Amino acid sequence: MNVILLEPYEIGADNAVVLNDRRHEHLVTILKSQPGETIRIGLINGPLGRGLIEQISRRETRLRAILDETPPPAPAVDLILALPRPIMLKRIIAQAAALGVGKIFLTNANRVEKSFFQTSLLDKTTLREHLLLGLEQAVDTRLPEVSVHQRFRPFVEDFLPNITAEYAHRFIAHPGVENSLAQAASPLMAGRILLAIGPEGGWVDFEIDKFRTQDFTPIHIGQRIVRVETAVTALLAQLDLLRQLSSIS
Amino acid sequence: MNVILLEPYEIGADNAVVLNDRRHEHLVTILKSQPGETIRIGLINGPLGRGLIEQISRRETRLRAILDETPPPAPAVDLILALPRPIMLKRIIAQAAALGVGKIFLTNANRVEKSFFQTSLLDKTTLREHLLLGLEQAVDTRLPEVSVHQRFRPFVEDFLPNITAEYAHRFIAHPGVENSLAQAASPLMAGRILLAIGPEGGWVDFEIDKFRTQDFTPIHIGQRIVRVETAVTALLAQLDLLRQLSSIS
Repeated sequence: MNVILLEPYEIGADNAVVLNDRRHEHLVTILKSQPGETIRIGLINGPLGRGLIEQISRRETRLRAILDETPPPAPAVDLILALPRPIMLKRIIAQAAALGVGKIFLTNANRVEKSFFQTSLLDKTTLREHLLLGLEQAVDTRLPEVSVHQRFRPFVEDFLPNITAEYAHRFIAHPGVENSLAQAASPLMAGRILLAIGPEGGWVDFEIDKFRTQDFTPIHIGQRIVRVETAVTALLAQLDLLRQLSSIS
Repeated sequence: MNVILLEPYEIGADNAVVLNDRRHEHLVTILKSQPGETIRIGLINGPLGRGLIEQISRRETRLRAILDETPPPAPAVDLILALPRPIMLKRIIAQAAALGVGKIFLTNANRVEKSFFQTSLLDKTTLREHLLLGLEQAVDTRLPEVSVHQRFRPFVEDFLPNITAEYAHRFIAHPGVENSLAQAASPLMAGRILLAIGPEGGWVDFEIDKFRTQDFTPIHIGQRIVRVETAVTALLAQLDLLRQLSSIS
């Protein structure tokens, strides 16, 4: 936890904040914070800032919030993700929030097991908790928006056409296709990016074709077979690098 | 497990192989393999190939090995890693092997807890098991060479100078330095690369200075604070992209 994130309703009169949950535990047991110290705080979907610790008891930490710092820039990438198995989903969601994505579309695919959609992880509250873990790691306040699309065809045929115009670039990751990101990406990577990553085992041809129809460019991430979690990190890192190279040149 | 990896001594007369450990279990319970089927196999530090399954009993799988395919090219990157805590080390080692690195130098650093060096994970056999998990994921046979350097100064002052000439590029990852990899990397990324990644919490200034003396270029990986595991994947992916862009242009 590299930042303590606050809900808007937790900011009281005179910017007083009382913490009595895992954030309090973290301050006491990990950071061994003392009254008088200043800690890094942030308002969820708002500014970053500092918290001046005024009082720490066994049960709670009282602090004064100063929220006047700009959070990191809004992420340029949104992510379509074939719903991973719950144990992976937890980590991938936190990871994606840590690396910075705007929206996450969780969708069905041929190689997604139906039972995955039954997980309690998809409850809004639980999803939010895992996203917050990622933001706390990365020191960001912008919560990715997550939506769940349990049927593939309506997602790709009806939903996607309504949003694709928002994106300057659309990629779908798939092993064995002709081009890597390096080969497929345009030298100037401005504008928003929509990136689709399949399930363990990959998309099936029908799904690839559907994405192609929506002007997605298939890309591979090398000869090696990687886990979905690794693919998410690797591709977000590569897209970030490409954007940086575009802004340098 | 996307490939079954074999030790050289497991290849018997007429290329007969008997598996009776987790590889056998995997074939039976996960792949539900049947006699007559062909599976992907590889010889550790040797070629890839196919195994023709001749017999499966409750206890063992018997197959015939044909090892005539070239494994992925030797990785161009070696990794210096401040020893992570054991639970992370396991995953990072497997991850690095999956992504492809030649050598891994595990070293001490100010923010590495001394106790980390006591872990049984550093036994050669245990390290090897975790590296193999990564290779089995990625379908590679080349086992990274791991060495452990329990004292930082002898490592950086005596050991490093003897090997730095092997590398065309040397980078040390550290938050808050001036340049990102995109800014620091030369447009032509040929030759071997040595990449140093610090502990959770980062290197201390003394360590950065020592690496600078050995001509390492400090690079950051953005404004966001990421876990060591994420940094390893992100930087290896970015280096791979840079090498690809160099070979395209």
